[in-house]
Amino acid sequence: MNTPHTSQATPRLSINRWTCRSTPIQDFLEATAAHDLEAVGLWRQDVEEVGLDALRRRVDDAGLRVSSLCRGGFLTAADETARAASLDDNRRAIDEAAALGAPTLVMVVGGITPEDKDIVAARARVAESIATLAPYAEQAGVTLSLEPMHPMFAADRAVLSTLDQALDIAESTGSDAVGVIVDTYHVWWDPALEASIARAGESGRLFSYQVCDWNLPLAANPLFSRGYMGDGFIDFPSITRMVKAAGYTGDIEVEIFHEDVWATPAHEAIGIVKDRYEELVLPEV
Amino acid sequence: MNTPHTSQATPRLSINRWTCRSTPIQDFLEATAAHDLEAVGLWRQDVEEVGLDALRRRVDDAGLRVSSLCRGGFLTAADETARAASLDDNRRAIDEAAALGAPTLVMVVGGITPEDKDIVAARARVAESIATLAPYAEQAGVTLSLEPMHPMFAADRAVLSTLDQALDIAESTGSDAVGVIVDTYHVWWDPALEASIARAGESGRLFSYQVCDWNLPLAANPLFSRGYMGDGFIDFPSITRMVKAAGYTGDIEVEIFHEDVWATPAHEAIGIVKDRYEELVLPEV
Repeated sequence: MNTPHTSQATPRLSINRWTCRSTPIQDFLEATAAHDLEAVGLWRQDVEEVGLDALRRRVDDAGLRVSSLCRGGFLTAADETARAASLDDNRRAIDEAAALGAPTLVMVVGGITPEDKDIVAARARVAESIATLAPYAEQAGVTLSLEPMHPMFAADRAVLSTLDQALDIAESTGSDAVGVIVDTYHVWWDPALEASIARAGESGRLFSYQVCDWNLPLAANPLFSRGYMGDGFIDFPSITRMVKAAGYTGDIEVEIFHEDVWATPAHEAIGIVKDRYEELVLPEV
Repeated sequence: MNTPHTSQATPRLSINRWTCRSTPIQDFLEATAAHDLEAVGLWRQDVEEVGLDALRRRVDDAGLRVSSLCRGGFLTAADETARAASLDDNRRAIDEAAALGAPTLVMVVGGITPEDKDIVAARARVAESIATLAPYAEQAGVTLSLEPMHPMFAADRAVLSTLDQALDIAESTGSDAVGVIVDTYHVWWDPALEASIARAGESGRLFSYQVCDWNLPLAANPLFSRGYMGDGFIDFPSITRMVKAAGYTGDIEVEIFHEDVWATPAHEAIGIVKDRYEELVLPEV
């Protein structure tokens, strides 16, 4: 469809690039701008594909901002060489976020392996590496958003499973540049959710809010069960009120990973996202 | 294979019926006894199939004990009629556990629905119903083991996701008959695991310990990714040490749900379970 939707601005809504990952980046940026939105969340894969300067230019030309860059992290390796390589790569990711004008870099901290199942030790290595990276991030003017991931990813993707645990690490660095991201898909089930979000606010460490639904049945790749808000089980008004009460006033990114959404033209998918956002999130912000 | 394995006794190991669910119940009981084990965990489906008295007789005749009965619960319905029916069914489950000589009834508390996503309210209903059931359980001489389930089941199966949350509910009843079950598959990822298991011990509410591994990739039905100990990512020696330190001296049930295991003759599957238990769990108990 070639007719841009023309609608009133939808405050604070940002579209994460992965929501429309099968759409070429330029088309994605144009579709987002055509919907009168202000911001997009980007991925390092976009930097790799387009080049850093060219990507920044395209975002500027579309009249958009970058709300976040995804992703740094993968800091659990016990091997010293691998650890050094990971730190280097994270410094590059911080540089990229700065060059794109993204205020925050999303950190997926990494998992464990069948050969080394000591999750407590893996978590300690994460805390140490985050502390190492914090001064570099400060200097670049970029914050690090630690992402607690749903516990079903604790083995292979992130040994960081709750907001409280992420805040413990963030506070232990002593750096204001380390905080957390609240992603509804990952944290909606947490019995301590309200208290943890409040703590993030009090600590000045609530850096990003991402929304999408928890759809069932889980997809074969459970990452791809992230659905449009309203299609699953998450209580968006309640969680959004917690985020608001914590003082968060930044962008709200919609990050959906779903085969059906990827098969939908970007313009149409973003239209659905806007409708759901206006119904379930915007009234509470 | 008709030749029973003859081996030394394997202390405290109990085989949960569902580990060999494709084997007829009588064959399962005989295979367990032939392995010189003392106990089995049973399900209400077994009661339904065989009849309560007949099932008890078969267990006695095989020289076995029942370590737990699975399961009560499903207490989240908001509707009063549904709630009353659920309480009645749980009272029957308590009676069945008592008749089988099972010390504890495993409680899977229930999930939410797309029509009612208020997980906080659902949890409050669980706490209320558990408090209602506690005196009945006390009188029957059966404990209620609240089962925190992995957060990937928070929507459709159990709004109880952590040991701390289960202990909050158990303690709030004021009844010594309400406690928790530590199932490695459900809680291995919890950053508060060690402290929570210690709290369960101090509170006198650590009623059951179930083991199986977290296998990846997740099966299409993620419940069926419960594997033999050693096949996945769980650190059994560490968790078993926590359980021992908390003072737990009861049965240790192996509860595997896995298509490959169900396709294995019970005698052989129980042999593998014994080997893995002796390697990864028994040295720490």
